[in-house]
Amino acid sequence: MSFKRLVRFISEDKQIYFGDAILPTNSSDARSSTEAYKITGDIFSNYSITSEKLPIKKLLSPLDSNRVGTVRMIGMNYRKHAEEINLPIPKWPCLFYKPSTALHHPNDDVIVPKIAQIDGAKIDYEAELVVVIGKQAKDVSEGNALDYVLGYTTGNDLSQRTWQVERGSTQFSLGKMFDTWAPIGPAIVSPSLIPDPNNLHISSKVNDEIRQDSNTLDAIFSVRELISFLSQGTTLQPGDLIFTGTPQGVGNGFKPPKWVKNKDIIEIEVENIGTIKNRFQFD
Amino acid sequence: MSFKRLVRFISEDKQIYFGDAILPTNSSDARSSTEAYKITGDIFSNYSITSEKLPIKKLLSPLDSNRVGTVRMIGMNYRKHAEEINLPIPKWPCLFYKPSTALHHPNDDVIVPKIAQIDGAKIDYEAELVVVIGKQAKDVSEGNALDYVLGYTTGNDLSQRTWQVERGSTQFSLGKMFDTWAPIGPAIVSPSLIPDPNNLHISSKVNDEIRQDSNTLDAIFSVRELISFLSQGTTLQPGDLIFTGTPQGVGNGFKPPKWVKNKDIIEIEVENIGTIKNRFQFD
Repeated sequence: MSFKRLVRFISEDKQIYFGDAILPTNSSDARSSTEAYKITGDIFSNYSITSEKLPIKKLLSPLDSNRVGTVRMIGMNYRKHAEEINLPIPKWPCLFYKPSTALHHPNDDVIVPKIAQIDGAKIDYEAELVVVIGKQAKDVSEGNALDYVLGYTTGNDLSQRTWQVERGSTQFSLGKMFDTWAPIGPAIVSPSLIPDPNNLHISSKVNDEIRQDSNTLDAIFSVRELISFLSQGTTLQPGDLIFTGTPQGVGNGFKPPKWVKNKDIIEIEVENIGTIKNRFQFD
Repeated sequence: MSFKRLVRFISEDKQIYFGDAILPTNSSDARSSTEAYKITGDIFSNYSITSEKLPIKKLLSPLDSNRVGTVRMIGMNYRKHAEEINLPIPKWPCLFYKPSTALHHPNDDVIVPKIAQIDGAKIDYEAELVVVIGKQAKDVSEGNALDYVLGYTTGNDLSQRTWQVERGSTQFSLGKMFDTWAPIGPAIVSPSLIPDPNNLHISSKVNDEIRQDSNTLDAIFSVRELISFLSQGTTLQPGDLIFTGTPQGVGNGFKPPKWVKNKDIIEIEVENIGTIKNRFQFD
């Protein structure tokens, strides 16, 4: 039997477990789960969902960064977002990366290091649907691409725009690499619950003000297309993540821009996948 | 006691070992080693160099890709290379990444997948000095930066320039991601043998024709500066690699460009660190 909503968490005994989240009545968001069925074994090969219920004391990033090989990020993948930042609709996916050390827990503070506090700290959020690869994928077709998906989670691709753009020598990496700058969670949701990953409401809020309010339907490259394309000549490994891009409504798209400030709280939600909510803490 | 030239290899019993290469007389290149002192334990924490000599049947990439978290690449880091491709001298390091699945053995064929055989297959080599991080590094100073180095190796950053430049939507990633497109080796050479990583001859040859012939002295950002800069707000992990950029003489720098062809053999050498030599095989 496959998990529904895979969570990683600290339980009452202070140990870390994987579990299948038990949802409260009327919720489909593992964020509000207080207990989970304990999972034993390797979530990428053989695992068992036991009948033992464990209390969830703290939700963690559903994969530990050591278990994630490559974090691929797709830029400019929503039509209206490409328009808001005045960039052409790409003909091929725009690919960049984050180091796996940037991954972070779904409810913990994001730390803004000194080096990111320059130039008025032009810090920005990006709500994203994140694909978790479940098994080795190379040269896969679009038709088979979803067979390689372990599940989906919600992510926030954080950027400091000065380092990303003006100081990056054309590459986005410097503005996106910091520890804690890629929160994901609250769960890895089974593909069995997500019949079409490109028909999901996706949104973000800053201190309860709605900023992004879109649907993954607006994506230029679908999840199927991304997995197939990225696997050409290239092995995708179990545990690799693909952040599939962000819709319009990022801080940089407003006139004047609405940058993230110290103590701001950013909430990202993807329909039926769940919510992550992180406060910003300037170091 | 610390290793001098750490090799990973298949021995006569078909098992994979780490070893400290035994150099032939008059050679400082582990490429020509036929045996090594067997190393036991974890090369990042506690290991022992035994007195047992093992025959080297085949040299492997000195780190398995599963043991490498993040592969950082520095672009435009040599003054004369920036000039040859008509780009300004960067004020900050230009950072991009390869997936660790691109890592490859020092003497094996590089496979050029179908997707990279477009547009006259504009495939290019880049000779690079590669830094192997030995322990967790965060917010380290330039003065202390070299304390975090496990050693140095030789690397080739391969690119398909159409995907890198014209089709990359500004990001280099698509032209650099393929399996086998980052050969490294032949050994990880101890910092005790490399008093100054920014004073080493670095060169490449294509079918015995010298193409790059420079010195790491020409680097814009030194190894110390790169490690310190990249660790600001960001944890570098044991096993992370930093490809430190390439000098002038890449195929793209010639008029007309000299692209790599099927069956070409590319040899990269860094002084006192060693040579890697890979033939190209169009898939």
